[in-house]
Amino acid sequence: MRIGIVAPSAPLDRAVADRVTALAAASHPDVELVFHPQCFSTHNHFAGADRERAEAFVAVANDPAFDALWFARGGYGSCRIVEAVVAALGPTARDKAYLGYSDAGFMLAGLYKAGFPRLAHGPVVGDMKREGGEAAIHRALDWLARGDPAALEPSLMPGTAYAAFNITVLSQLLGTALEPDLSGHVLMLEEVSEYLYRTDRALFHLTGNPGIARVAGIRLGRVSDVPENDPDFGETEEETARFWCERTTIPYLGRADIGHDVGNKVVPFGIY
Amino acid sequence: MRIGIVAPSAPLDRAVADRVTALAAASHPDVELVFHPQCFSTHNHFAGADRERAEAFVAVANDPAFDALWFARGGYGSCRIVEAVVAALGPTARDKAYLGYSDAGFMLAGLYKAGFPRLAHGPVVGDMKREGGEAAIHRALDWLARGDPAALEPSLMPGTAYAAFNITVLSQLLGTALEPDLSGHVLMLEEVSEYLYRTDRALFHLTGNPGIARVAGIRLGRVSDVPENDPDFGETEEETARFWCERTTIPYLGRADIGHDVGNKVVPFGIY
Repeated sequence: MRIGIVAPSAPLDRAVADRVTALAAASHPDVELVFHPQCFSTHNHFAGADRERAEAFVAVANDPAFDALWFARGGYGSCRIVEAVVAALGPTARDKAYLGYSDAGFMLAGLYKAGFPRLAHGPVVGDMKREGGEAAIHRALDWLARGDPAALEPSLMPGTAYAAFNITVLSQLLGTALEPDLSGHVLMLEEVSEYLYRTDRALFHLTGNPGIARVAGIRLGRVSDVPENDPDFGETEEETARFWCERTTIPYLGRADIGHDVGNKVVPFGIY
Repeated sequence: MRIGIVAPSAPLDRAVADRVTALAAASHPDVELVFHPQCFSTHNHFAGADRERAEAFVAVANDPAFDALWFARGGYGSCRIVEAVVAALGPTARDKAYLGYSDAGFMLAGLYKAGFPRLAHGPVVGDMKREGGEAAIHRALDWLARGDPAALEPSLMPGTAYAAFNITVLSQLLGTALEPDLSGHVLMLEEVSEYLYRTDRALFHLTGNPGIARVAGIRLGRVSDVPENDPDFGETEEETARFWCERTTIPYLGRADIGHDVGNKVVPFGIY
C-alpha cells in the first residue's frame, strides 16, 4: 500500500523522513511511504504558504494511487487552509485513511464534519524525533497498513462513537464551520505545554459549549510538559477535568491512553 | 462617591492598594475607595477560593452604599464564578458602574448578557504597578467618578455600540452561557503575552464564530509582550487581524487605543 505524507502545519526535517522511511522498510515492507515535497517547504511559521500546503493536501487526498494520508507533524497552520481543502476534495478522498493529531485536529474536525469515514487521532511522522519514537511510528503503520487492533486506544468498545482532540485545538474550532457533531461520542482530550490555569479555562470553554454538552462523556489523556504555575495551581489536571465535567453534568469516564508522546494510541473517529 | 473593589481573579498586593488609596485621596477627594478584604485573600492561583471570590463580588455589587465596582486585577479565575455571581445579583447591582479588563472580561460578558447598563473595559487597580501607572489610575477614577469623556477610547462615536475584550478571554467564552450578543457592535480587541501564532489561531476562532460575524467591525488594540516566535511569524498583528477580517468579511476598522498598559482607554459597553 502507498501512504502519502503532507504537512498542513509545520515542516518536517528530511533526516526524520529518512529515518521513518528506513524504519518502515524494515518493519512494513508492504508499505511505500511517499513524502510530498511540500513537507520540506518552509514559509515563516509554516511548511510552505497557505496555498502550497492546501494544494499538497488536496493532491494527495484526491490521488487514487494513495491508500492513506499521514500527517507529517503538528505545529500550527491547519486552520488557515482546512475549509479550502475540504471544499476541493473529491469522492476518492473519502476512501483513504487519515492519521494525525495536535494541530491536525483542525483537519480531522473538518473532514469528520464532511462525513469522511476513516479518520483517526494518532501518531505523526514527526514523533520519530521523540525518544523511543520508533514505537509510535510502528503503531501508526500497524493501523494504517492493516487496522491492527493492538494500535488502538484500549478503552474502545464496539458500538460506541469516539473522537479525540488536543484541548486547545478543539477549543479554538468550537462554533466555527469546522465543529463536528460530537453528540453521543466519547470525547478523548489531551494537552501539552499549557499552564494548568489555561487548561482549566479551556475546559470551562469546552464543557460550557452546547455541542460538547451532548457528548457521551469525556476521557482525559495525558497533559504533559506543563509549565510551572506560580503559585501552584493546586489541582491536578484530572481534578480540573472532573470539576468541569461535574459542573456541567458531562460524565467523566477516566483516563485515555493518548497524548503528545510515544505512547499515543490510535483513536478512530466515529462508531468503533 | 464610594467605589468597592473586589478581585474575582488574582489577589492584590496591599502595598498597591495603599498606593492607589493615597493617589485617589490626592486627585479625587470626593472618592472613597473600599477594598473588600477578599482582594488580599489567596487560594492557589486565586484571590480566595471560588466561593469567597463570588461572595465578595455579590456583596459589593448588591450593596447600595457603593456607586461602582472596580476590578482589583486580571489574572485568571472569573470564569469559574461568573454564572453563580450573576444569578445572585439583585436590582441594586444594575445601578452601578463596573470597570475592568483582561480576565474581568468574563464578568463583563456575563453582566452585559444579563443587561447591565454601566459596564466598561478599562484600567484595574493593579495597573498601579506598571511604570507610569498613575495615569491609568487617574483615568479609571475620572471615568468612575464623573464619566469623564477624556478617559474614553478616542474613536467612540455617538449612536454606535461598542464592546472590548482581551482576544483570548473572548475566545474562551464563545458559545458558553457568557457570550453576549455583539451584533452591530464595534468590537475592540487587545492581547498580551501570546505568541503571534496563537493570536492568529484565536482570530480564526473569533472571526469564524457566527456571533462575532455579526459585529459592525473590529478594531485592534495593542498586542504587547509578544514572545519571540521561532521562526518569525512573518506577519504583524495588524496583518493577522486584517487577514481574518477579510477572510470572513468582517470590516476591519483600524487600531483601538486599548491594551495591557497604562495607555488603556475606557470603552463603555453598549451604545455610546
